[in-house]
Amino acid sequence: MDTAQPTAPPDAIRTDPRALRRLIRAGGYAGRTGGLAMGYVQANLCILPAADADDFLRYCQRNPKPCPLLAVGEPGDPRLPALGADLDVRSDVPSYRVWRDGALADTVADIGALWRDDLVAFALGCSYSFEEALLEAGLPLRHVERGMGPARYTSSIPTVPAGRFGGAMVVTMRSFRPADAIRAIQVTSRFPAVHGAPVHIGLPHLIGIDDLARQCESPFIPVPDDEIPLFWACGVTPQVALRAARPALCITHTPAHMLVTDLKNASLAAF
Amino acid sequence: MDTAQPTAPPDAIRTDPRALRRLIRAGGYAGRTGGLAMGYVQANLCILPAADADDFLRYCQRNPKPCPLLAVGEPGDPRLPALGADLDVRSDVPSYRVWRDGALADTVADIGALWRDDLVAFALGCSYSFEEALLEAGLPLRHVERGMGPARYTSSIPTVPAGRFGGAMVVTMRSFRPADAIRAIQVTSRFPAVHGAPVHIGLPHLIGIDDLARQCESPFIPVPDDEIPLFWACGVTPQVALRAARPALCITHTPAHMLVTDLKNASLAAF
Repeated sequence: MDTAQPTAPPDAIRTDPRALRRLIRAGGYAGRTGGLAMGYVQANLCILPAADADDFLRYCQRNPKPCPLLAVGEPGDPRLPALGADLDVRSDVPSYRVWRDGALADTVADIGALWRDDLVAFALGCSYSFEEALLEAGLPLRHVERGMGPARYTSSIPTVPAGRFGGAMVVTMRSFRPADAIRAIQVTSRFPAVHGAPVHIGLPHLIGIDDLARQCESPFIPVPDDEIPLFWACGVTPQVALRAARPALCITHTPAHMLVTDLKNASLAAF
Repeated sequence: MDTAQPTAPPDAIRTDPRALRRLIRAGGYAGRTGGLAMGYVQANLCILPAADADDFLRYCQRNPKPCPLLAVGEPGDPRLPALGADLDVRSDVPSYRVWRDGALADTVADIGALWRDDLVAFALGCSYSFEEALLEAGLPLRHVERGMGPARYTSSIPTVPAGRFGGAMVVTMRSFRPADAIRAIQVTSRFPAVHGAPVHIGLPHLIGIDDLARQCESPFIPVPDDEIPLFWACGVTPQVALRAARPALCITHTPAHMLVTDLKNASLAAF
């Protein structure tokens, strides 16, 4: 899934979201955004025609844990000034996926040619932000240590539908020793804008996951006997809902190639 | 354990801590305090000679989850003005236990005759406060529904010793469905002054509890298959430490016969 990186990125983009967006916008970086613009919020991007955008907005409002809205653009406006004064959703993401009638049609580096007066941009919170808070709290994330993504599952928890949007909640699992699990709930509860507290703990069969290894939809790391699994709502949930709703056009970021914003992760803390 | 109640208590004491303390002080009520002065903090009381009080104060400071200090009196002073302007620890608790050399020596309704110039009073937070917050949050507490106390265990978690005080942490267990367990952690995290967040979740054998039913030191309610056990530090911990330290004299409240204060439970919320 990783896009080739023609040249080593300059140091500034490791800490400066504006420098990173400028480089991406100029076509100078098309890779993953993890580990870059450290400390700043990275967002899931979804762009829909206005005809579908109203339903999707209500879907997000009704399902804030999997679909935490950070910003919604005006119809036809590619800017999201709440996330960055110069931010342009047509050019500032390293890689875009273009979906037509629910099927992946193309992967592109820029969507300027596809932009229309009726498109609405949605930026949704992503787990990178709460994972930074967990790591800063001294809580170990085994998948991060191994350079992997978290374990991902389709749960039996239904989302609240809106229009054509609906379906099961996708969740990510991170396991912790019990005292760390309690701390992880405390830490992530402070960040409702980026999935917030877990939706489940400890008894995965109650949310449709009978076999943690077999049902995992991403590379799996076994859970040690002295750890307990915690499950967070995942930003893949709206992507699944979008695919099922089959809008005529939908544009998203390519997984792990996020929309980088000027918001500090720490600024999202609710208390 | 319940003390006989000669007459039905007047209605005021159900909601007014000052009225309740005045009645107790006058010898008009010697029963349990649960369900009275609703909404106000009830405290564990411990009174020690100054020679032991310094060690005990350091013990509480080092173990804030089982021993959350609400107030400490001046040596020889029976008042705790932070908890109530008129509060007098010699007379305002419905029933006292007098311990000599670590052994229960007497149960009395008033300790005026025992008071000395070197005695120091300690008031420690109690789970009644966080249970009120859990119930107000809509979380079911099965032991409360049945008029019982919570399940209590001696865990293998060591406390941090100070002088002669030390020993294992006593914990209470309340079980919840997983989503409610997450909510219970959030709610009790707001109340560090009354035991705060749980100390363990889900894998009791890791804290020395291999059999929830057999090792329970209070009447046991089975945990349903769809619930997960949460363990909180318990105010019995310092009582066990006190008994093991065997001070020449120690005076405590009789279990469930608490020191009622003018502090609102809600006023203890940390955020």
